[in-house]
Amino acid sequence: MAIEVPTFADVEAAARRIAPYAVRTPLVEAPVLGARIGGRVFLKLENLQRTGSFKFRGACNRIPMIPESQRARGVVAFSSGNHAQGVAAAAEIFGIPALIVMPVDAPRAKIEGTRAYGAEIVSYDRVTDDREAIAARICAERGAALIKPYDDPGIMAGQGTIGLEIAEDAARFGVILDAVATPCSGGGLVTGTALGLKGAGVAAPVHSVEPENFDGMKRSLQAHARTNAPGTSEGGKLSIADALMAPVPGHHVFALADGLLAPGIAVDDEELARAVAFAALKLKLLVEPGGAAALAAFLAGKLEGKTVALVVSGGNADFASVEQAVSRHSEV
Amino acid sequence: MAIEVPTFADVEAAARRIAPYAVRTPLVEAPVLGARIGGRVFLKLENLQRTGSFKFRGACNRIPMIPESQRARGVVAFSSGNHAQGVAAAAEIFGIPALIVMPVDAPRAKIEGTRAYGAEIVSYDRVTDDREAIAARICAERGAALIKPYDDPGIMAGQGTIGLEIAEDAARFGVILDAVATPCSGGGLVTGTALGLKGAGVAAPVHSVEPENFDGMKRSLQAHARTNAPGTSEGGKLSIADALMAPVPGHHVFALADGLLAPGIAVDDEELARAVAFAALKLKLLVEPGGAAALAAFLAGKLEGKTVALVVSGGNADFASVEQAVSRHSEV
Repeated sequence: MAIEVPTFADVEAAARRIAPYAVRTPLVEAPVLGARIGGRVFLKLENLQRTGSFKFRGACNRIPMIPESQRARGVVAFSSGNHAQGVAAAAEIFGIPALIVMPVDAPRAKIEGTRAYGAEIVSYDRVTDDREAIAARICAERGAALIKPYDDPGIMAGQGTIGLEIAEDAARFGVILDAVATPCSGGGLVTGTALGLKGAGVAAPVHSVEPENFDGMKRSLQAHARTNAPGTSEGGKLSIADALMAPVPGHHVFALADGLLAPGIAVDDEELARAVAFAALKLKLLVEPGGAAALAAFLAGKLEGKTVALVVSGGNADFASVEQAVSRHSEV
Repeated sequence: MAIEVPTFADVEAAARRIAPYAVRTPLVEAPVLGARIGGRVFLKLENLQRTGSFKFRGACNRIPMIPESQRARGVVAFSSGNHAQGVAAAAEIFGIPALIVMPVDAPRAKIEGTRAYGAEIVSYDRVTDDREAIAARICAERGAALIKPYDDPGIMAGQGTIGLEIAEDAARFGVILDAVATPCSGGGLVTGTALGLKGAGVAAPVHSVEPENFDGMKRSLQAHARTNAPGTSEGGKLSIADALMAPVPGHHVFALADGLLAPGIAVDDEELARAVAFAALKLKLLVEPGGAAALAAFLAGKLEGKTVALVVSGGNADFASVEQAVSRHSEV
């Protein structure tokens, strides 16, 4: 397999490509967080992105790269929900049929959201089925294009627009960031964001934040080689961050990540749930557990820095799960 | 009483005064709302403001106007909660003692929030007590300065910075707004916002949105004279928008509002609750019922316009009340 990574020019091209469709999400200061460190904390609110997560950016950049002649055959994606909605919404905008392979236990909000964008849905079981095989079979049958969730330069460049925007807005606020953190599953978001930031001249270390046992990026960065987290082991407990369960970073992703990213951070389910509750009660934001991973790392004191940007990557929680987090962590 | 209204220069001065302390809240596009009208809808997210509502702006502008020699005697305010927190937080910043007169039935989140900023709290009963008399007595005893919730040019100018920021951000997005709506209780927010917008060259009509039976601004604008809404009548049902129960606009407020504002809009409790649920489920935002009034007017089809800005003015709901709204309006 030829490894291909995006360049900063690809991120800039993505920014132009998605501008008519993507929400220019805000970077907003959260004094209640800054007060905890005697510094300043900024949140990049991708839960306010179209479809409720950053995934729309990558899909909206990647899908129009499909040659006109092949578009009628449609696109296929496998996803626990956020990439599903991103692909479905982008496909709808470009008038392309979309089929999404989703786990049966995906949050209801994500399944309904995907269907609402007109996508066809095929369900699979996380434990017994191989979603990549299902998607590959359907692509072969239909001649459809597979839109991978992260391990694709076009997807990574799309997510990179987040880094570009953080850099622009930090400059507008007149601040020099000394740390940035983003949630991480397969690594498209964190590497793209780091690429966009570095290209725009922001030298701050960029940290991946993953659930414990699904911290493949952290382990891979330590080893300077793609390394699986135990998340893949049989019968392992799943994370409450349904969006962050890739056990290992993608090939193309890791080729870019190694040397670009600062050391990874892992957070446990308690830390994730506390961050969801904090977001609801103190920040007035609905955030899903995976979307709150960088906030969780900050609240747990796992992130160094006095002028920090945290990417809040998604808000597609079932409301009941937010209620549960709030009821267990009302004293945030 | 000499009627005094702020000028656009006062709004510009307020912007400079509060800049070191207030959050520059974002104006963010909500495609899910724009799709409903085949247009564009932008939200000004004052629920992300310090203290969780716009009230911090007015307090942060007004309190430093107190002469140095009088500051040690402290400030007093009466408020159902958002002004309370705004005054308490601003007083804490300027090192001034604050006493807040709050209704016993104010949302717990607002009472706790106020106490957390170090303010002393005196409780009163909305039906049997006269909060203005209680506050006046305490001011007389202590020589403290009363910080009124809206009927004060310094407060209005502070809220006016919202209009200034909407104008700046709309220009940055390259859009020309054709309607703006804000929640309205005593009218400081809506008149200040209109003053800031007009001064910055935005010609869009600016609408107040009030709960039915508390629509004193709507009635006053129609009559071109301050007119009480029936909210004051004995035994009348209260609104779920605890923050929007002023029955009539302030004197100074109305002197500015008449001729400046477009016709007012009223929304009922169902429309408010639906907006709270919509904000949580579709916009990923925690909004209190009063803070959602402009969104409620939009969702109810009561606001004309194809390029619209809605002020989301506060997010200090008890979480349980959001749960209740979501459970009753899950099909938003």
